[in-house]
Amino acid sequence: MKKQINIGIVGYKFMGRAHSNAWKKAPLFFDTPSTPVLKVACGRHQESLSEFAQNWGWEETETDWQKLINRPDIDIIDIALPQNLHYEVALAAAKAGKHIFCEKPLSMDSTQAAEMLKVCQENGVKHYLNHNYRRTPAVALAKKMIEEGKIGRIFHWRCAYQQDWIVDPSFPLTWQLKKETAKAGPQWDLNSHAVDLAHFLVGDIVSVSSLTANFIKERPIADETATGSLSGASKGDEMGEVTVEDAALMMVRFQNGAVGSFEATRFATGRKNRLTFEIYGSKGSLVFDLERMNELQYYSNEDTKGEHGFRTILATESIHPYAGHWWPAGHIIGYEHAFVHAVVDFLDAIENDTEIKPDFADGLKIIQVLEAGLRSAESGSEVRL
Amino acid sequence: MKKQINIGIVGYKFMGRAHSNAWKKAPLFFDTPSTPVLKVACGRHQESLSEFAQNWGWEETETDWQKLINRPDIDIIDIALPQNLHYEVALAAAKAGKHIFCEKPLSMDSTQAAEMLKVCQENGVKHYLNHNYRRTPAVALAKKMIEEGKIGRIFHWRCAYQQDWIVDPSFPLTWQLKKETAKAGPQWDLNSHAVDLAHFLVGDIVSVSSLTANFIKERPIADETATGSLSGASKGDEMGEVTVEDAALMMVRFQNGAVGSFEATRFATGRKNRLTFEIYGSKGSLVFDLERMNELQYYSNEDTKGEHGFRTILATESIHPYAGHWWPAGHIIGYEHAFVHAVVDFLDAIENDTEIKPDFADGLKIIQVLEAGLRSAESGSEVRL
Amino acid sequence: MKKQINIGIVGYKFMGRAHSNAWKKAPLFFDTPSTPVLKVACGRHQESLSEFAQNWGWEETETDWQKLINRPDIDIIDIALPQNLHYEVALAAAKAGKHIFCEKPLSMDSTQAAEMLKVCQENGVKHYLNHNYRRTPAVALAKKMIEEGKIGRIFHWRCAYQQDWIVDPSFPLTWQLKKETAKAGPQWDLNSHAVDLAHFLVGDIVSVSSLTANFIKERPIADETATGSLSGASKGDEMGEVTVEDAALMMVRFQNGAVGSFEATRFATGRKNRLTFEIYGSKGSLVFDLERMNELQYYSNEDTKGEHGFRTILATESIHPYAGHWWPAGHIIGYEHAFVHAVVDFLDAIENDTEIKPDFADGLKIIQVLEAGLRSAESGSEVRL
Amino acid sequence: MKKQINIGIVGYKFMGRAHSNAWKKAPLFFDTPSTPVLKVACGRHQESLSEFAQNWGWEETETDWQKLINRPDIDIIDIALPQNLHYEVALAAAKAGKHIFCEKPLSMDSTQAAEMLKVCQENGVKHYLNHNYRRTPAVALAKKMIEEGKIGRIFHWRCAYQQDWIVDPSFPLTWQLKKETAKAGPQWDLNSHAVDLAHFLVGDIVSVSSLTANFIKERPIADETATGSLSGASKGDEMGEVTVEDAALMMVRFQNGAVGSFEATRFATGRKNRLTFEIYGSKGSLVFDLERMNELQYYSNEDTKGEHGFRTILATESIHPYAGHWWPAGHIIGYEHAFVHAVVDFLDAIENDTEIKPDFADGLKIIQVLEAGLRSAESGSEVRL
Repeated sequence: MKKQINIGIVGYKFMGRAHSNAWKKAPLFFDTPSTPVLKVACGRHQESLSEFAQNWGWEETETDWQKLINRPDIDIIDIALPQNLHYEVALAAAKAGKHIFCEKPLSMDSTQAAEMLKVCQENGVKHYLNHNYRRTPAVALAKKMIEEGKIGRIFHWRCAYQQDWIVDPSFPLTWQLKKETAKAGPQWDLNSHAVDLAHFLVGDIVSVSSLTANFIKERPIADETATGSLSGASKGDEMGEVTVEDAALMMVRFQNGAVGSFEATRFATGRKNRLTFEIYGSKGSLVFDLERMNELQYYSNEDTKGEHGFRTILATESIHPYAGHWWPAGHIIGYEHAFVHAVVDFLDAIENDTEIKPDFADGLKIIQVLEAGLRSAESGSEVRL
Repeated sequence: MKKQINIGIVGYKFMGRAHSNAWKKAPLFFDTPSTPVLKVACGRHQESLSEFAQNWGWEETETDWQKLINRPDIDIIDIALPQNLHYEVALAAAKAGKHIFCEKPLSMDSTQAAEMLKVCQENGVKHYLNHNYRRTPAVALAKKMIEEGKIGRIFHWRCAYQQDWIVDPSFPLTWQLKKETAKAGPQWDLNSHAVDLAHFLVGDIVSVSSLTANFIKERPIADETATGSLSGASKGDEMGEVTVEDAALMMVRFQNGAVGSFEATRFATGRKNRLTFEIYGSKGSLVFDLERMNELQYYSNEDTKGEHGFRTILATESIHPYAGHWWPAGHIIGYEHAFVHAVVDFLDAIENDTEIKPDFADGLKIIQVLEAGLRSAESGSEVRL
Repeated sequence: MKKQINIGIVGYKFMGRAHSNAWKKAPLFFDTPSTPVLKVACGRHQESLSEFAQNWGWEETETDWQKLINRPDIDIIDIALPQNLHYEVALAAAKAGKHIFCEKPLSMDSTQAAEMLKVCQENGVKHYLNHNYRRTPAVALAKKMIEEGKIGRIFHWRCAYQQDWIVDPSFPLTWQLKKETAKAGPQWDLNSHAVDLAHFLVGDIVSVSSLTANFIKERPIADETATGSLSGASKGDEMGEVTVEDAALMMVRFQNGAVGSFEATRFATGRKNRLTFEIYGSKGSLVFDLERMNELQYYSNEDTKGEHGFRTILATESIHPYAGHWWPAGHIIGYEHAFVHAVVDFLDAIENDTEIKPDFADGLKIIQVLEAGLRSAESGSEVRL
Repeated sequence: MKKQINIGIVGYKFMGRAHSNAWKKAPLFFDTPSTPVLKVACGRHQESLSEFAQNWGWEETETDWQKLINRPDIDIIDIALPQNLHYEVALAAAKAGKHIFCEKPLSMDSTQAAEMLKVCQENGVKHYLNHNYRRTPAVALAKKMIEEGKIGRIFHWRCAYQQDWIVDPSFPLTWQLKKETAKAGPQWDLNSHAVDLAHFLVGDIVSVSSLTANFIKERPIADETATGSLSGASKGDEMGEVTVEDAALMMVRFQNGAVGSFEATRFATGRKNRLTFEIYGSKGSLVFDLERMNELQYYSNEDTKGEHGFRTILATESIHPYAGHWWPAGHIIGYEHAFVHAVVDFLDAIENDTEIKPDFADGLKIIQVLEAGLRSAESGSEVRL
């Protein structure tokens, strides 16, 4: 019988579901070193919290997150909250000696992030930041190929993260569109993922030039009861100011000499959740698109002359990272599976007392790049890190 | 508190996992009318059975399937066995008044299939045949669009189901390659899915011409302990005769005047699990590929002139069948999700005492087409149904 | 100064233009051994013929094709006529010692084809049959790769040639839809191309099973003055019977053990001129689509494990067949360029007195397969060649 | 008999061929108002010039371009030279009252460009700048759809022009890699095309932030006799400094509020000539890729709900711009065809004394953007226009 490890989750919306699913599913498909127990679900509204907990099999509920954190039987705090609440909860959890599985983006600014990292380190707890796309088989394969030298020296990173959920001007002013709750727009929400992938696959960023845009300046005030949803309802005719950017572009330099571009937007009509990157190197190139997340495109300069071309690797074979735990080759997996992989690796890291990446140190670096982007957008000048 | 409904599963290999996952996951993402209880897992080898049961949370195990069927607390028998074992188990289950969730292909021949159907009908049990691809959002959307008249009169069905797992001549003679256990090769395994989709989307087939091929006549005898796997090991140098076809092609006529083609093979190098169909009609066309199962291509003759083109619908929006229960638009789902949809619809059918399709009547019709194909391949002549 | 070689063309519609363009363009981009002189254009209607000749730079016109053929200064007869007129003209041309550049399909039946071949051989003239798709860089590359063993033993040929120009029931009864002028429908027009490619890339076909369909039985009588066009006008309300098939499917066996399928139709809504084939072999696979004719997809079993995938070769590099004569890599060519390649190779064959393929011997074999298909469709049984 | 119009071409390399082809082909496929006569070809080296002239049918040759320009029988000067030679020739041609068909990029700087424009205007000559991609059917269709309001308010322009011809460090230091002959690298060569398309499709650019990179600082000195080619040979071991950038990225703001990004590089391994743009608007979106130049992807927000998707329009139908002059639908055209369209429109503009776009006024605006980019790259700050 495996050791059990008790989870307390804070937050029960979109990410609460995705995380709960991951905790449940991980030991079914992977030989995890311990069995995660869905012990306590924590949230503010008892009624919806109870419904959530019952549906997902959380044994208990708690409306006071501090009480949750102080429970001695809890091993892991899973932070599935909007980013403005990460700091306080993470600090308390670390101080209480809990391992932390934290949703992205890490925090509201780099000061918070630095402190979160420091406190985690001081208290010797694992701190995982859930940039889950690293753990899709295709992206993990890209990493492996880069490490093996298949791409050679990297020249270019070209990335876009495109959504279209606020193209309609009548879409209300939800928490994501206000600076005080969201810190920023797609620069925070989307480019945090993109920068994480760039750090993971290309290397550290040393300078940032950025440009942001606001296409719709005012929106109907949101009905708060619908807050948190991507299909919010408005309260009525009253308008409020959008205080975050609608789109954020960046051009960057990497320490290794590569250059990169980022484009994050909620105004790319037709793109629902397209995160695409292109990597060009001296020996080969890689292309990924999250909407076809089981595929990795690869071009090799070392193919026989006359037979070069971008090939589509369907990363569902047992040789591909993570893929062998699911279905036979050619049977694709979906969005939620990367969360499962994260949970598996997190449990391993706890068991073996090893590092898990990305962690809060990575998160801090991401936030520093994003902040540099916001500063650059304001000044119109390149910002060096 | 929801009503509970007890499942007994027979079989615990690839399909045992896929079904177990579906039973567990269904109530997490859908508001099922009852809660499926993973009551008893049944299989021949106690040790591996126990491991399976423990991993997936089956409460009890049983090595005698007849005992399982006679347990009064079991509501549903889930048949996750190879096709040569369906007949016996299904008959007993129906006679015992159990609802049946049966893996495909239905049976070894149409005589079996007809009796399975008859006994189910006589005993008033639900009988679901798991041609799961009907329940991917993209295929379900195709069905909806056809029913709404978007495609008009259908002229063409063009379909291929392509795999490549036995291209290597050293791949051993597993149960799938022997007539006594598998009945036939891809004609049974793959074309059963393809014919189900054709029946679902186009209509009844009234004549069949077929051609089969054997590319590798002999293979090393398989190590039986590895039987059931798609990556079997051989016992040694001893060779045995492959007694099923390696590839099966069909040309068919539909009752409604459309014509169709099928091509099922295990020798399409590079295709891991590609099931693709094209439907051409008087008003529009549809194209699907299982390796990109979240997408449906649609061409409409009614688009503005000059703006016609095949469009790729990413069937992940809440308006798309099943999709709204998962993640926001643009977040794809995987192979296993269609099993969840099947479980949900099956539980609904039991609760509301309605029909669920495809059922054994559909299965019988599929088997009749497949048998006609085998006869036609032998005679070289068209076979009318 | 290069030797000049005099062309007489018979026919001046779609193919008259495509051929004229090729004769003019060949020496501009290729170092042809001789300079083709557009000497005489021949057609029935003096007025439109003169317009054509003037536009394309044909030096003279002639309304009597027999006179043209008897001119001693003509070296090459270019037959750009509908198939029902090939036989008579080709026979006369061969007997007059002219080299023949003949549009496809070769003839109305295999008796004609055999005689055309025999007379050409007896008179020692070059006879080229213009299945031009062989000479796109991508298809020529496919051939080269197959010959080099890149694909290994071929198992499957899967091909479709799809158009949609007569989906509309009000499209008139043009010459292509009548047996007396067209011999057959897409079986003749489209499958002749497809069978040529199959012979070229896979090998000889030894048996054929076929199925044909008529979706629209009657159409408005065409206005004859518009005959020949793909967008004909009807004369009025009078209806006539469609006497050729609307779609033709075939399943075949090749001498080398491969199996194949063909699907030719004018009812594939949305497909304008899609000729696609898939070739699966023991070492690799190839996929081509004429609507993206500069690309060849290639899968190699010999790629590094974990990095397999279908790659898209953009056949525009100087190493690719023919491509180096056009533009730098990445600059695509179009439909008409394959005609230029045919002209170049034809001029070379004349100069060096070598064979050019496909010739009337190939054409005869193609016609035999097409005829076998028509017989099989009628009988419902496989026809062996 | 049509009026004849005499052309004198200066330059006979890659562009000399492409232009010659266009002049010859235009009247064959289009009803041009006049017949272009290939009168005089001009270049420095008599031998290769003569060969070129003979091959392409230029009636005469001339090694002194000033003499050519002063010939009274010449109506049009076609400038097919590298950009450092445009200024002088264009000025002289305009002063001599010749219409100018000029290869891109327009000039070495905006001072030159402004003067070229002024002198043309003063002398009342037509001045066409050959950004030919505007005249591919797919791009022209994009323009038409934008003008019709199909895309609505434009939010985003995302563009990359990617090549890979100098990834190999042993590729020699050709004229394109030296500031004195090329002015800049891909910023000049490739981004001039990209900016032209952005101006054409989105509107005027009002600010630019840019970043450039040099991946290979030194290269072997080129063998000058091979200069001009994209596959140059080096003289030996001697190295020289690369004085233009290898890659140039830009972020821009448009006057209409849209934002845009550009990425031009010669280091995108695997991309031979990929010019791709994405346009996202309030009603729809468009995507283009030059390597599939017959296709335009279009997403419409106004499609039926649940049936949205990016559709691939194959712009080969007679309803599409220019396409009806070539082949039936589905038969693609190639790179050189856009040159033909330019020639046709240029002859029309001369005949009807109308404007043709892009002209030197457009060229000036492009150069201003490119220069702003170079300045921004140097300063690290946004430059306003």
